[in-house]
Amino acid sequence: MVKVAVLGYGTVGSGIVEVIKTNQDMVNKKAGDEIDVKYILDLRDFPGDPYENLVVHDVEVILNDPEVQVIAEAMGGVEPAYTFTKRALSSGKSVCTSNKELVAKHGPELLQIARDNKCNYMFEASVGGGIPIIRPLNASLTPERVDGITGILNGTTNYILTKMEREGSDFDVVLKEAQEKGYAERNPEADVEGYDACRKIAILSSLVYGKNVNFENIYTEGITKITTTDFTYAKKAGWAIKLLAMSKEVDGKYFAMVTPCMINASNPLYNVNDVFNGILVHGNTLGNTMYYGAGAGKLPTASAVVSDIIDCVKHLGKTVFCFWDSEDLQLSSMDDSVKRFFVRVADADFAKAQEVFGDVEVIDAGVAGEKGFFTKAMSEKEFNEKSAQIGNVLSRIRVEE
Amino acid sequence: MVKVAVLGYGTVGSGIVEVIKTNQDMVNKKAGDEIDVKYILDLRDFPGDPYENLVVHDVEVILNDPEVQVIAEAMGGVEPAYTFTKRALSSGKSVCTSNKELVAKHGPELLQIARDNKCNYMFEASVGGGIPIIRPLNASLTPERVDGITGILNGTTNYILTKMEREGSDFDVVLKEAQEKGYAERNPEADVEGYDACRKIAILSSLVYGKNVNFENIYTEGITKITTTDFTYAKKAGWAIKLLAMSKEVDGKYFAMVTPCMINASNPLYNVNDVFNGILVHGNTLGNTMYYGAGAGKLPTASAVVSDIIDCVKHLGKTVFCFWDSEDLQLSSMDDSVKRFFVRVADADFAKAQEVFGDVEVIDAGVAGEKGFFTKAMSEKEFNEKSAQIGNVLSRIRVEE
Repeated sequence: MVKVAVLGYGTVGSGIVEVIKTNQDMVNKKAGDEIDVKYILDLRDFPGDPYENLVVHDVEVILNDPEVQVIAEAMGGVEPAYTFTKRALSSGKSVCTSNKELVAKHGPELLQIARDNKCNYMFEASVGGGIPIIRPLNASLTPERVDGITGILNGTTNYILTKMEREGSDFDVVLKEAQEKGYAERNPEADVEGYDACRKIAILSSLVYGKNVNFENIYTEGITKITTTDFTYAKKAGWAIKLLAMSKEVDGKYFAMVTPCMINASNPLYNVNDVFNGILVHGNTLGNTMYYGAGAGKLPTASAVVSDIIDCVKHLGKTVFCFWDSEDLQLSSMDDSVKRFFVRVADADFAKAQEVFGDVEVIDAGVAGEKGFFTKAMSEKEFNEKSAQIGNVLSRIRVEE
Repeated sequence: MVKVAVLGYGTVGSGIVEVIKTNQDMVNKKAGDEIDVKYILDLRDFPGDPYENLVVHDVEVILNDPEVQVIAEAMGGVEPAYTFTKRALSSGKSVCTSNKELVAKHGPELLQIARDNKCNYMFEASVGGGIPIIRPLNASLTPERVDGITGILNGTTNYILTKMEREGSDFDVVLKEAQEKGYAERNPEADVEGYDACRKIAILSSLVYGKNVNFENIYTEGITKITTTDFTYAKKAGWAIKLLAMSKEVDGKYFAMVTPCMINASNPLYNVNDVFNGILVHGNTLGNTMYYGAGAGKLPTASAVVSDIIDCVKHLGKTVFCFWDSEDLQLSSMDDSVKRFFVRVADADFAKAQEVFGDVEVIDAGVAGEKGFFTKAMSEKEFNEKSAQIGNVLSRIRVEE
């Protein structure tokens, strides 16, 4: 029997206990051993909860119990999760987590501590919720030189954009609805400004390139400036607007960004709607593969953590390979990123726009007083210089082919 | 250094060598050891091929060489692949394969021989080509009670159906085109009659239910009866027609079938077009996840085989868990399978059809002389009894919700 402790008894933490208890026979079979939750750490008490007797308030009880071999950290945030995780790994206890902030900030250090202590630090649930993506990258796409990864990695913003598209409602209206339904936080900044997706693409990029991608260096733009008028054009042109988190290797240069993009129906992410997530991975011999599912939610996220617990139990005393060096990957300047752009300008500025951008593909969506068009591909630097020559750009959205 | 042999130097076999050589640094890094192709078995010679010096014609050279630890079998068909695989595994050499016929027919026996000899039998490439699906099922969805798996598992038929939908061309015309382009075999029976998809869903079902699903017991219906008129209705109703291979657990009963189905845009498989494959997996706590990519092709399939080679090298002397007992899973009769149906009848038979089926949802696609409609959900038995009361059913396609 392997004893497990769960840190944090909120949504994900209680989900972890629920998944283990609901599917105990399957969990034990796959782990090749009986998995038993011995402790739940939380500041609160949970009178009436079926596992209230497992709740402890002092992490020392868990860290000092040699019987505990695997810890599921579901506290979120950097501290005290960082300190607890370091201490657990240092004493040879494996740690599984859904904590993207901590993984993005201290992943390579924690992985090294795990290696040094013959245990594991696993974080399948930190990206894409219940979608298996970390393990496929680490254990399935092993022969591939992955040169591109593009994800819809935030369910809240995908829900908002889907609603805006379907209902023609404004961002503010849909955000309020999403908050009422519990799909968006009362402080929605981390989602709508792209910070959440930024941490997730930093984690994925670090894994596929093998070096550390510092999330603070990733260009990040949220969805707050997307309007219903943008969707009017997108629908007319048959495109979707999605918040994409992506990184690419182009001729030996690495680019990473989070930004709203127009994508068309030939992109497998086109149909990833509502709160769902999708992750498109391009390998040099494999081509595209895509992974789709619930990007958040209590049980899907918990299921991913439990899959890590099982993997840790199967590999007690042995560290599973995970290539993420502490050395920073040099990201290229956004100035050099090349894309097409969708642009809207007032009628009065269109002649100048044509002069500056040359051949453009105009989309006639019947919006009075303005014109919308696709430019040809150019660098961000070139685009910014050209835009500056036009009086006022009403909107510009990058195009992901 | 780990020595590898490749059996069969056709499309997949030569792809395996190409993937290893192209990405040698990545392959070695992920395997934690240098991987070197020592032999290629083929009846033919390959003068001028960069690896012609590795070609041998006698399998005994490979089987009797203690240095060879992993064998990639890319011969296809049951014999002599079956005999060679058994002998290799019996002497402790791991075998990786893309051979769905062999895996579907002798999977549990070969897995047992591998276990008995502390080596591995792996077959990631046997289903979904380059899409990681076997390893996610075995190593990622571990806590899940998977109760449904639905796949577009055959690229040839998906290509044909996509072309029929987009171009309004007849099956025969599109098949001929596909044959000319090399997307369909000269003898297309295995693809268009669903036999290929049948073996693949047998493999997936065996893995998720843990018992052997005999492919010979799976109800299998191909796409040869699908017409352009069916697509006229489907497009009008906003549905797609796909050849689905699926298995489900419903109230403790297991159903498995391969059949053309109508699916609507809310199904993640709706947008899986052309030669691509998609596999939708439903778990009891995770909900839906979907896996998408190239279901066939030289390099994608080879990449999946190489991912298995790497996994075998990482686990030399140790058998990786794979739950597929030799005991047969009892499949329920198709009679008891419950679905809605899309039905077309001549105008003259429509009154009788309404009388027999009760409330139906008519689709007005403007086709002269007939009516098309969706029935409510009913068992196959009930549907067949009711259909028999109508003069002549022009077409019936199952509906997958």
